[in-house]
Amino acid sequence: MSSYFITGAGRGLGLELVNQLSRMPSNQVSIVIAASRSQPTAALQEVVDRSHGRVIPITVTITDRSSIDMAVREVSSRLEGKGLDVLINNAGVMPGAFKGIAKMDNLRYAFEVNVEAVHETTAALLPLLKKGAGKQVVNISTTVGSISQAEGFAQAPFPAYKVSKAALNMLTVQYALEYGKEGFTFYVISPGWLKTDMGSQNADLGVDVGAGAVLDIVLNSRPEYNGTFRNILVPGWENNEGPNRYDGKEVPW
Amino acid sequence: MSSYFITGAGRGLGLELVNQLSRMPSNQVSIVIAASRSQPTAALQEVVDRSHGRVIPITVTITDRSSIDMAVREVSSRLEGKGLDVLINNAGVMPGAFKGIAKMDNLRYAFEVNVEAVHETTAALLPLLKKGAGKQVVNISTTVGSISQAEGFAQAPFPAYKVSKAALNMLTVQYALEYGKEGFTFYVISPGWLKTDMGSQNADLGVDVGAGAVLDIVLNSRPEYNGTFRNILVPGWENNEGPNRYDGKEVPW
Repeated sequence: MSSYFITGAGRGLGLELVNQLSRMPSNQVSIVIAASRSQPTAALQEVVDRSHGRVIPITVTITDRSSIDMAVREVSSRLEGKGLDVLINNAGVMPGAFKGIAKMDNLRYAFEVNVEAVHETTAALLPLLKKGAGKQVVNISTTVGSISQAEGFAQAPFPAYKVSKAALNMLTVQYALEYGKEGFTFYVISPGWLKTDMGSQNADLGVDVGAGAVLDIVLNSRPEYNGTFRNILVPGWENNEGPNRYDGKEVPW
Repeated sequence: MSSYFITGAGRGLGLELVNQLSRMPSNQVSIVIAASRSQPTAALQEVVDRSHGRVIPITVTITDRSSIDMAVREVSSRLEGKGLDVLINNAGVMPGAFKGIAKMDNLRYAFEVNVEAVHETTAALLPLLKKGAGKQVVNISTTVGSISQAEGFAQAPFPAYKVSKAALNMLTVQYALEYGKEGFTFYVISPGWLKTDMGSQNADLGVDVGAGAVLDIVLNSRPEYNGTFRNILVPGWENNEGPNRYDGKEVPW
């Protein structure tokens, strides 16, 4: 019976993670805090409405620490003294640099949302996470942020996204090294290239497939995952060569 | 006969790189632009004074694009129509988080100086670098920024430094992928743990040894270095296990 906090829940992968969790038995998933930057989207509201109170929407600006702190107070009251089990830092941006890297003007923005906001959200929720039994923090990253595999993604014109995700990976490992000994599992998951607003309709996988594969990892998380970079497993995609391999294995940094 | 631009030249590794380059024959090193954030330090001024005009100090705030652009105009005039051969982005900061990563309050600062400023400096100097024959851009990173080796540095309380250097590594690879085909060599060097203000007097190596080892790499740079992460080679330190191995090999990301 675990409680979840998921950012970027208004649409895309975050929304679908919330949706799938809300359909699981209540002895498995007790509560899902669905955080998004503005009022719940119609799609999120629909999930909330049929969740019998298990999905709780919350509005938070994750780039603003005072907004996060306010959200944490609300979450704390919703949890009624219990801890938070699982945090999924899913919100992120993928700004492009279509005139080449030398003209890239959105590195700061990518760091703010994809790294600094994850740090602030995590830090603010740590007291609740320490009280929880799950002690699991999943940061949604991407194989596109793997420095070792960068050549395979050279054609994707999103350098700020790549650089910020490499930074997020290292941030996650730093948390893992510090909190692993307290029973935490901090790791990153690459959810695959998904058909969302971010991924476009040219993507490899439906968002339902990607979210399901992410949750397969989260629900079967093991202590050894701490400090690792995990790829989703999608039957039929395990043996592809290159970027669209979804083999469930560790991704090299 | 190459021209160099080195940031962070007021002290530490940057100063010693300038010093050693200024002592090389003028048919090897024609001009060294020594950039620092304020008026030349006494130590830099001494190097300038005995360089017979080959070392040119320049004041630039690398976190301010307009200051960089002004510096580039000055460099351009100093080069008298010639290109710039080698850029060494050496300036950097190593802010600590001594109360643990959850209290880290300097990630933004580390990104600004260690990554964004490198991007802006590089982008602004690219037109001069394209005119140069060397086409070499070296970003000073650190094995402490290797995500794969993070466990070995777990005790060093500088998470913002580590995260920003991992980001710098990915930034470098992105430039390498884009400009390698134009004959550029973009790579990162870990200069070792040096006895400087940043490294403290507990460090492994004198700054003269570290700077010499960095220049051994730079002066013997090969196209295969593009997009790689290079360790210095220091005789007697090649076979150490762990953080203080200086074996001249590639560092895993």
